[in-house]
Amino acid sequence: MDVSPGTLRPGGRTARVREAVLEATQDALGEHGFHGLTMDQIADRAGVGKTTVYRRWGGPIGLITDLMADLADRSVAHADTGDLEADLLENATSVLDALTAPRLGATLQAMIAAATCDDAAAAALHQFYARRIGEWARRVDLAVHRGELPPGTDSADVIRAISAPLYYRAVVSREPIDSRVAARAVAVVLAAARAGAFVDDGG
Amino acid sequence: MDVSPGTLRPGGRTARVREAVLEATQDALGEHGFHGLTMDQIADRAGVGKTTVYRRWGGPIGLITDLMADLADRSVAHADTGDLEADLLENATSVLDALTAPRLGATLQAMIAAATCDDAAAAALHQFYARRIGEWARRVDLAVHRGELPPGTDSADVIRAISAPLYYRAVVSREPIDSRVAARAVAVVLAAARAGAFVDDGG
Repeated sequence: MDVSPGTLRPGGRTARVREAVLEATQDALGEHGFHGLTMDQIADRAGVGKTTVYRRWGGPIGLITDLMADLADRSVAHADTGDLEADLLENATSVLDALTAPRLGATLQAMIAAATCDDAAAAALHQFYARRIGEWARRVDLAVHRGELPPGTDSADVIRAISAPLYYRAVVSREPIDSRVAARAVAVVLAAARAGAFVDDGG
Repeated sequence: MDVSPGTLRPGGRTARVREAVLEATQDALGEHGFHGLTMDQIADRAGVGKTTVYRRWGGPIGLITDLMADLADRSVAHADTGDLEADLLENATSVLDALTAPRLGATLQAMIAAATCDDAAAAALHQFYARRIGEWARRVDLAVHRGELPPGTDSADVIRAISAPLYYRAVVSREPIDSRVAARAVAVVLAAARAGAFVDDGG
């Protein structure tokens, strides 16, 4: 059996080191944000040798990028509820919870900041959201098949439109977000989707 | 007449220094982003003494914050067209143009990055968008008065919903934006607003 360094089985030393380092990264991001992220501090927090952290992750951008990949892997697709409004509210609530959770919210903000100045971080961020959008869009497709929405509805754009007002307030206009903002997003998207505004070349 | 240092009349030396420094800041942001912004480089580019730049702006966050204030001052409210759809398309197009203009787009991305890690930058960003949202919301209020939208429509939220999908793609999911994305935002918001989804406690 050919086992290269860095590809040991899940649960092995390599996986444990990665878990400790990514946990430490999330903690540090929650406390100091992206600009306060230093490799030495992460190595200390994780109880891992500095050489290992530098060799494997290279720098703060490498840490953020790997953290995004790990978060994407851990994001699980739930079964649909069979009701579009309930599905969209679940989606909006999951976005609200992620952005307002102290550690995860800070991680998302740090990822967004890193992406503004680094192409690799931007590509990782894009992959992270493309995957989430695709998973949730399947529920919208099912609603189209059930006849809840017009044929030709752009399901990915429906999902983007649920997240967008929450991210806009949290990241751009810097306004508070709560369950009313999430409910408004659902009401707006549902009304527009039912009216055919998400149908390509039709709205 | 009592003229304190730093409050000379517009067009005086203080204003010229500020203009040169903020121009240099936008150039540097367009080339290297927020993380590459250094005070020495800005002083060199602007042809201004380093001592002056350090004394007046303190650091990169001070430069970004002042740049935001300047951009907010220069953002002018246009007369409304008398037609809500045309007003919203003008708004969406102005957001699209800002985000895709090389220098201004990079400045907005840098401001967003700075706000993730600095409270003063976050407050300045909030002020910048609050002012823009308020100016455009007036046009939506006029449409409500004309009877184009239901009474009680949350005009500020209508405007946020126009910007949100453009910023979501440009800053969060890192997807391209173009006039189709802007047109979709207008179609979605108009359909939802007409259906009453932006009416408080009513949607």
